[in-house]
Amino acid sequence: TLLASPEGRQLGGERRTLTILISDLRGFSTLCEGLGPEQVVAILNIYLGAMAEVIGEYRGSINEFIGDAILAVFGAPVPQEDHPERAVACAIAMQRAMGRVNAELAEHGLPALEMGIGVHTGEVVVGNIGSNKRAKYGVVGRHVNLTSRIESYTVGGQVLISESAARALGDRLRTRGCFEVRPKGVREPITIHDVTGVDGPFAIHMTEEPAEWRVLAEPQP
Amino acid sequence: TLLASPEGRQLGGERRTLTILISDLRGFSTLCEGLGPEQVVAILNIYLGAMAEVIGEYRGSINEFIGDAILAVFGAPVPQEDHPERAVACAIAMQRAMGRVNAELAEHGLPALEMGIGVHTGEVVVGNIGSNKRAKYGVVGRHVNLTSRIESYTVGGQVLISESAARALGDRLRTRGCFEVRPKGVREPITIHDVTGVDGPFAIHMTEEPAEWRVLAEPQP
Repeated sequence: TLLASPEGRQLGGERRTLTILISDLRGFSTLCEGLGPEQVVAILNIYLGAMAEVIGEYRGSINEFIGDAILAVFGAPVPQEDHPERAVACAIAMQRAMGRVNAELAEHGLPALEMGIGVHTGEVVVGNIGSNKRAKYGVVGRHVNLTSRIESYTVGGQVLISESAARALGDRLRTRGCFEVRPKGVREPITIHDVTGVDGPFAIHMTEEPAEWRVLAEPQP
Repeated sequence: TLLASPEGRQLGGERRTLTILISDLRGFSTLCEGLGPEQVVAILNIYLGAMAEVIGEYRGSINEFIGDAILAVFGAPVPQEDHPERAVACAIAMQRAMGRVNAELAEHGLPALEMGIGVHTGEVVVGNIGSNKRAKYGVVGRHVNLTSRIESYTVGGQVLISESAARALGDRLRTRGCFEVRPKGVREPITIHDVTGVDGPFAIHMTEEPAEWRVLAEPQP
């Protein structure tokens, strides 16, 4: 049948609405060029270790580290009613944790890092994906790609989230405003929100911002 | 010291010239929309299982499955003198194996897949990368990103390789020609070769091509 592999292994697969978080370092490849290989690995491990800890605190599930990028999901494998809120609060906590990461890097004489994060809520297929030797719980579908596109619009220190994630948070979301983009391979323009904080049970906000940012806190025309 | 994590764990890191192979399915996210979740996972596992087998035959090392994409390296962790040739021959073997994959999918009433592959040789940093709980042998650096860019230019059934990979194969490389592209974030335009076969010890060629392709086998003006 469809559900059995040629080797008789049972295959699963389920459609689930999840919140996907993708983070990436800005300019890390360029930074690497000027560093020794031990330094590159040391930086990555300090950074990834700190981020994994934050994601664990918010009960997110790390799907993969891809070089300096992290793909995490909220709402799977264990269902979570509040997955959009957890993911957005987690993204802010990750940005806040970068202060500690950069302080630790500085102690070792290593350069500071800047990270961007994209968060999006959408329906994906989850299941054990891979070959016989290396199958693992994974997520696939266009919403994973879309999260990656959203992340690609970030600058260092930023958390950008989709309209669907923003809607789930409602009036508990604090933003600097929103803007429209038309990612490659996406038919309609999408609205992206530039997050500064979350109110409510997961209350967390970005650390103190420069005064000129607050002036720009209204949606741009 | 730099080489010890805060927990005293020893961190490695080494600069190595490797050949990187990235494959991806064309239009898979769109295809998924019309399928049941069990079918999506069944398709992926048949496809990834077959590709993992081919990569194993050529002694490549699968670094990750990222949804329907595969990142594999040749020349690490075990050094291989002939890594560019192995990787290019492997890419052709993967394309040839798609015939079997699609026949198996058709038997199950599943739609056919089309895959593109990018191959590039360059210097990367390798090491055990990740957090304490999930570190694994990984590769980072701009040449990994560049391989992904090269792959993004493929259409289904195509193997595109960089100038550095092509140079390593010399006159054992058979191509349909080459073209210049200027990927986002890359300063100089790069030359990409459209591979049809490899001669020499790893001799392998694409299966029979339509006659009109052969007419176009010269470099385009």
